[in-house]
Amino acid sequence: MDTGSASQSVGVVTPQRARFTEPVKLKCGAVMDEYELVYETYGRLNEDRSNAVLVCHALNAAHHVAGHYAGEPENTGWWDNMIGPGKPVDTSRFFVVGVNNLGGCHGSTGPKSLNPATGRPWGADFPVVTVEDWVATQARLADHLGISEFAAIMGGSLGAMQALQWTVSHPRRVRHSLVIACAPNLSAQNIAFNEVARQAIITDPDFHGGHYYEHNTRPTRGLRVARMVGHITYLSDDEMAAKFGRQLKNGALNYNFDTEFQIESYLRHQGNKFAEYFDANTYLRITKALDYFDPALEHGGNLAKALSRARANFLVVSFTTDWRFSPERSREIVKALLHNRLNVTYAEIDAPHGHDAFLLEDARYHRLVAAYFDRIGSELNA
Amino acid sequence: MDTGSASQSVGVVTPQRARFTEPVKLKCGAVMDEYELVYETYGRLNEDRSNAVLVCHALNAAHHVAGHYAGEPENTGWWDNMIGPGKPVDTSRFFVVGVNNLGGCHGSTGPKSLNPATGRPWGADFPVVTVEDWVATQARLADHLGISEFAAIMGGSLGAMQALQWTVSHPRRVRHSLVIACAPNLSAQNIAFNEVARQAIITDPDFHGGHYYEHNTRPTRGLRVARMVGHITYLSDDEMAAKFGRQLKNGALNYNFDTEFQIESYLRHQGNKFAEYFDANTYLRITKALDYFDPALEHGGNLAKALSRARANFLVVSFTTDWRFSPERSREIVKALLHNRLNVTYAEIDAPHGHDAFLLEDARYHRLVAAYFDRIGSELNA
Repeated sequence: MDTGSASQSVGVVTPQRARFTEPVKLKCGAVMDEYELVYETYGRLNEDRSNAVLVCHALNAAHHVAGHYAGEPENTGWWDNMIGPGKPVDTSRFFVVGVNNLGGCHGSTGPKSLNPATGRPWGADFPVVTVEDWVATQARLADHLGISEFAAIMGGSLGAMQALQWTVSHPRRVRHSLVIACAPNLSAQNIAFNEVARQAIITDPDFHGGHYYEHNTRPTRGLRVARMVGHITYLSDDEMAAKFGRQLKNGALNYNFDTEFQIESYLRHQGNKFAEYFDANTYLRITKALDYFDPALEHGGNLAKALSRARANFLVVSFTTDWRFSPERSREIVKALLHNRLNVTYAEIDAPHGHDAFLLEDARYHRLVAAYFDRIGSELNA
Repeated sequence: MDTGSASQSVGVVTPQRARFTEPVKLKCGAVMDEYELVYETYGRLNEDRSNAVLVCHALNAAHHVAGHYAGEPENTGWWDNMIGPGKPVDTSRFFVVGVNNLGGCHGSTGPKSLNPATGRPWGADFPVVTVEDWVATQARLADHLGISEFAAIMGGSLGAMQALQWTVSHPRRVRHSLVIACAPNLSAQNIAFNEVARQAIITDPDFHGGHYYEHNTRPTRGLRVARMVGHITYLSDDEMAAKFGRQLKNGALNYNFDTEFQIESYLRHQGNKFAEYFDANTYLRITKALDYFDPALEHGGNLAKALSRARANFLVVSFTTDWRFSPERSREIVKALLHNRLNVTYAEIDAPHGHDAFLLEDARYHRLVAAYFDRIGSELNA
């Protein structure tokens, strides 16, 4: 499957911005009086407004899902291999929406934004946001775009949690939910890794209690370590072994604290790259949103009960080597959905790439999503 | 199995100190002109000096293996459940030696010690030490104690690497090697976790390039994060789920950056405790020793060839839920030993505790070690 050719890209895209002035009450209790969301759209909304697809982002991505910016051919969207003309989510049939979530650092209102109450950046005072809050604000964006019902809402990892939450928060507004590389909640180990990342950031002296903007600095050391530890959990052990193994960086051992092994060099590079552009306060809040996601909590731990309001059809996908959100966790979701007699297609993709597999161009995975969207498309035409 | 009663403790122990003035050339090329090793012994060396057992320590332990210090009944050795009168390694039959390795921070010469060349602490100038170097210096301690051959050398994790290395470095000086929760080398993922820990320490502003002693400070933030990430890898996912799951710290969600979940509280506590007493320069070097250990490297990756000099009998033990050094990795060692037609007993213990299982009192595990030492003891009597 060659989805990389120019003819299959959505081409040059331009982010848009929507301002919301109706206050939103967040799950933490705080109220945002007004906020902005940055988004992109690809394809055309059809006449009966029935072909919209919402793509929810995970930890370090945002609204730039497909295509590239004018004059920046390398700056392609994070799911460009999945979305475009002739791609699994075919933009010649579907109207695709990507949005930077509230609290993000890519243009939507977040900790970097000015707090109208103080005229200074929100920083540490920006509220904790949850998957439910994101779904609530995404629903307002849908209103803004005149979309009363999505043909599909999709995401991987934390994005999949949003796709799942939509079916409960707004059961009549989503016909299909694609829940990829997901879990019904984080395990103790998942939370533990998030907590390490947060502590690395919070204890960085440049964090200044979250008000680093005013100190003209950024906690890049903490962010770097946070990203390194996160990155390990995105890859499978086998993939790391195959890609790096014990390969040396310079052909021979140096017995010092420079990089001896390729894997060290790779991780440092990932950490540095991330620390350059990502906002620490956003990172903290996104890891918290992951920790808090647990639809079963308010239902005595009963996930089936938690999902009983859902009316959507589901495609649930997991990857065999994903040890962050293992297939076992996806099966918990599938079981709860089936208990509610919902239509569920479930696939465990035998892929070596670990959690990151959801972002990669695996032929079986992409064929599956393409086939599923063919079905959604056929419903449109009927 | 009740091994906790006072009658089965070796009781009050006192560390001893040996000074070595014959220079030792380390694998990194550096030469230590002189150094000291702190050690403890339990039981009595028999007349023909045939009942000595060397216990090698792993990452955060040292020479205090069993018993307790006078007036400090809580300060018990790290393997006190394994070693003592009537315990699996029965000190009424065996003479057990524990030693703090070169580069350590518990009394042996290490980065905290004064560098005779400068009169100031070694700090960053203390050389990188390897498993081979530790074995070489442990052998000198054996000379000092008049032990030409050990009945057994044992360890878990990094300690097991030393027990394995002994059989190659000094094949005639070790009759039995107990290689517990070990791997023939670190995987890319193992190295990656070590590198995260190192970067957390090295980028802590209080690290001062490793010369923090002179600044009257310590990189406790980095050490804390390093320990937290390490700790996650010592426990199994299932054990964490069983022990902590998604239990809340205060009964309800607070939606802030205090500890919400018990696992966060536990990890922070582990990190704080460790950062209080452990030396960062030692931690860096111990993770490096782990990274470098790879006996097959000089034999074209052929582990069987690397171990062909070994003459010892082996007990190799792995734990089913150990994802740091999985049973698969132990089987690589077993296979290489069997290829050399050595006597190998191998057991995979079905234990829920992950890598840490080697330190814990699991009945099947302890019975196995006890039975193995009975066999060693019967050879003594023969």
